Amino acid sequence: MTSPLALKIAREYGTPALVIDMDRVERNIARAQKVCDGAGVANRPHIKTHKSPLLAQLQIKAGAKGITCQKLGEAEVMAQAGIDDILISYNLIGEEKMARLGALRAKTNVTVAADNAVVIAGLPAAAAAAGRALPVVIECDTGRKRAGVETPAEVIALASQIAGTPGLSFAGLLMYPTETGWTEAQRFHDDALAGLRQLGLDPAIVSTGGSPNLKNVGKLKGATEHRPGTYIYNDRMQVAAGVATWDDCALHVYSTVVSRAAPDRGILDAGSKTLTADTGGLDGYGLILEHPEARIARFAEEHGFLDLTKSNTRPSVGDVVRIVPNHVCVVVNMSDEVVMVRGDEIVGILPVAARGKLR
Amino acid sequence: MTSPLALKIAREYGTPALVIDMDRVERNIARAQKVCDGAGVANRPHIKTHKSPLLAQLQIKAGAKGITCQKLGEAEVMAQAGIDDILISYNLIGEEKMARLGALRAKTNVTVAADNAVVIAGLPAAAAAAGRALPVVIECDTGRKRAGVETPAEVIALASQIAGTPGLSFAGLLMYPTETGWTEAQRFHDDALAGLRQLGLDPAIVSTGGSPNLKNVGKLKGATEHRPGTYIYNDRMQVAAGVATWDDCALHVYSTVVSRAAPDRGILDAGSKTLTADTGGLDGYGLILEHPEARIARFAEEHGFLDLTKSNTRPSVGDVVRIVPNHVCVVVNMSDEVVMVRGDEIVGILPVAARGKLR
Repeated sequence: MTSPLALKIAREYGTPALVIDMDRVERNIARAQKVCDGAGVANRPHIKTHKSPLLAQLQIKAGAKGITCQKLGEAEVMAQAGIDDILISYNLIGEEKMARLGALRAKTNVTVAADNAVVIAGLPAAAAAAGRALPVVIECDTGRKRAGVETPAEVIALASQIAGTPGLSFAGLLMYPTETGWTEAQRFHDDALAGLRQLGLDPAIVSTGGSPNLKNVGKLKGATEHRPGTYIYNDRMQVAAGVATWDDCALHVYSTVVSRAAPDRGILDAGSKTLTADTGGLDGYGLILEHPEARIARFAEEHGFLDLTKSNTRPSVGDVVRIVPNHVCVVVNMSDEVVMVRGDEIVGILPVAARGKLR
Repeated sequence: MTSPLALKIAREYGTPALVIDMDRVERNIARAQKVCDGAGVANRPHIKTHKSPLLAQLQIKAGAKGITCQKLGEAEVMAQAGIDDILISYNLIGEEKMARLGALRAKTNVTVAADNAVVIAGLPAAAAAAGRALPVVIECDTGRKRAGVETPAEVIALASQIAGTPGLSFAGLLMYPTETGWTEAQRFHDDALAGLRQLGLDPAIVSTGGSPNLKNVGKLKGATEHRPGTYIYNDRMQVAAGVATWDDCALHVYSTVVSRAAPDRGILDAGSKTLTADTGGLDGYGLILEHPEARIARFAEEHGFLDLTKSNTRPSVGDVVRIVPNHVCVVVNMSDEVVMVRGDEIVGILPVAARGKLR
């Protein structure tokens, strides 16, 4: 039951291994770019999914305008690799971050997000350290109740604060509509825009987000950019959401069955320190392609507990299986590197360069 | 609401940060050692919790006989730092692992575990590469339905296989009794021992495991070693299990409140890529010491969603809080380093040297 490639991975590299199919990666990159191009919206992929400069460069080569990062540590790694157009879609706060942001901004075209006055009040320190103005977009809550101001009135107040703060420039709006929330997002955007124009401000950037939202790109009139992340690899959540097929899943976790202590159960060498406890709202912790009826029921840190009660096919000790993880972004974050393959050939080892950095 | 040390961490290091209190670490190390010494059972701490050679060396200096690792990558890092007595409590399988195990065994006093004939059949390759015999303990299931043979009869069959395989030597039994399962574990052990002696085999090692089981150390007659892991840091699970106090928790996640978009909620800069989605069976994803009634309700990758509905105290944007994580072992695994403190002083940065290695 072990495929030729799996045998090769296990023999030459070992398991558990994160393996990416570069043909699929390139296909996924091209497809999303085409969607954005077709909608007349710039593509600014979120690199939190792959965290590798090489892949960010492939995204840019395919037509992406720049990249999105979620933290400074990611942006620093990407800038060091020569990527010059970076949006950090997160509230940055504190002296240590302002010093790093200043150093980054000194040599990079970087824009940051803010959703409150305290964050904005801290940013001039970074601009001063950089020696040039820092563009700031305002994060708007569009139904996720995460970060982001809840009303257009708050947008206008914060835009006014940014415009009135030496060293900062108002750059636009950061939105992340829920998949069914685009009408509300439009209303929010339009109301905010009307108020901004009264202040003489115009958003150069109106950014939307999400891979499942690729089907909605262009729906928001006024949107200039989109930030999809997961689409480069896809995962079981994307398939469950109906926005990817199993063949679009470019990352598989290769794992060896190391124990079969009883007929109805087994142990994979991929536990919570490989697949993570993030269920993504799904049952079980991944789909085993060779045994789709087997359930990864629970974890120890290095043990994946296989429940085989409902599976007609049952792996033997030593079998190497391929798992489509539930949420690929958090799985990539667990490893220092991924194995790159094309067809049945291993073509390289790619460092996950921006991982292990909490900040 | 931000403590002097938290201010210092945020200013000099930044958040999110994993911060370990070395006074507490040393106290935890000493306490567990004393328990093992008192029971006449050797202490072989599991380094999967901290993954740092420096801390393993402190454990050994305090009296530990050696260490336990869960994977080769951990053992390689520890051996390179000069630690010479290592138990790998896991089924190792495959050519790539046998080559690495051989290289490790050539220069290190390493013992491995096995629970099936396929794993045992693979091990002579490692012994041959090492140029010396490889000791093997048999993993026994003692109620966790994880890895481990289910019956003493299987122990005897596998011990016989090991003893009859050139290059391997039978070293003993690996057990991990549930906290209430020590009577059953004793019966399993005694039955296995009787059969082993008929084969002329004697277990040099009978190893038990678990930090909550420190209170049971010595209960199993015949036990020679114990493998506690989490006790060096402790966490919310250990407190919930009644085996540690909040003051015994040596690792805190320092996190900044970056958004307070509505009165009843907020966002921490520690999300699932810092605290992990591992609940450890508890409600919420950690205890915030400054706001114990606030609930870390859910995560995005870099957002911890604070539910403040039941909290009388509410943090402001910019506040730095200290979080006791639910399961510290998986949290340490998320970061390349931890910050060491004593009292209110930062005393160093410790690499989490054995992390990021899946294998």
